[in-house]
Amino acid sequence: MLTGIPVTLGAEVKMKNTSTADSPVIVSPEQFLDHWQGHRRLTRRVIEAFPEDQLFTFTAAPPMRPFGELAWEIHQVSALTLTGLLTGDWSMPDWRGGVSQDRAELLRQWDELTARIGAELPQVDPAFFSQLHNLPWGEMSGWVAAIYNIDNEIHHRGQGYVYLRALGIEPPPFYER
Amino acid sequence: MLTGIPVTLGAEVKMKNTSTADSPVIVSPEQFLDHWQGHRRLTRRVIEAFPEDQLFTFTAAPPMRPFGELAWEIHQVSALTLTGLLTGDWSMPDWRGGVSQDRAELLRQWDELTARIGAELPQVDPAFFSQLHNLPWGEMSGWVAAIYNIDNEIHHRGQGYVYLRALGIEPPPFYER
Repeated sequence: MLTGIPVTLGAEVKMKNTSTADSPVIVSPEQFLDHWQGHRRLTRRVIEAFPEDQLFTFTAAPPMRPFGELAWEIHQVSALTLTGLLTGDWSMPDWRGGVSQDRAELLRQWDELTARIGAELPQVDPAFFSQLHNLPWGEMSGWVAAIYNIDNEIHHRGQGYVYLRALGIEPPPFYER
Repeated sequence: MLTGIPVTLGAEVKMKNTSTADSPVIVSPEQFLDHWQGHRRLTRRVIEAFPEDQLFTFTAAPPMRPFGELAWEIHQVSALTLTGLLTGDWSMPDWRGGVSQDRAELLRQWDELTARIGAELPQVDPAFFSQLHNLPWGEMSGWVAAIYNIDNEIHHRGQGYVYLRALGIEPPPFYER
């Protein structure tokens, strides 16, 4: 997943001025999709690494939520972000609705969303990333919304690593995606 | 920090073809700098939130390292990434050299690097983000190297949140940068 397709610029991008500082960081859609999906694969392995009876019950530090609940939150924010980028509709999810304590159901919905991201993220209008959007947690650009979503996944998954270690389980390597 | 400056495209970017799927994700240099520096401000608050006598000794789940050691790792990977993007030199840091158990020294070096990132990141040749580079942990594009560095920071800081909760301390809000 570390092989993005480099992008060749064929023309100058119009900016406030022409210094290096104002040239954009160019990320190919394949690189961005790889970035997100790589994190999703790793998070899925963390969900699977928990003993089934601990996924929705164990916490290394109360009042923190069990990792199964954090995983559902990641799932819901990811679904919201994909829908928002595609449609401009950033409605707040029904956090507790449709959330089960059944790992198989979590993984089923996880895989369904992974397939949707693979099929639908490439359809997002690239202009959406620089435009401003109204999210449930404030106004931000599509880029900030998209990367915030992935950051949220990394943040909570890192917490899952501590839970696993506290359970005596070696987590999957962070660098493997 | 959630207000990036939208970029206006003045010309088409040359791609393999003209479908939406091949148009790049455009991130302005200000947005990328804001993204990194926002995370650095939050991580600095997490370093400060630890009781001084626990920062380099406490772990919520052995054999995990204390948060002070994780923070030094974040610092060293960040310094490596900035230098690599600027110069093409991605030499492995001397992990244990120059690392102290003195929080004031950690924060001093942290702030020094924050100032360097603010001054020097805008000087990075934007082409570096799409070119491939040889890092100590493999060949990857500058974009992947840059975002991996930030992901590594988020991952370990998320672990620090569990340590703080285990110590009975409320961590700083994740969404505040």
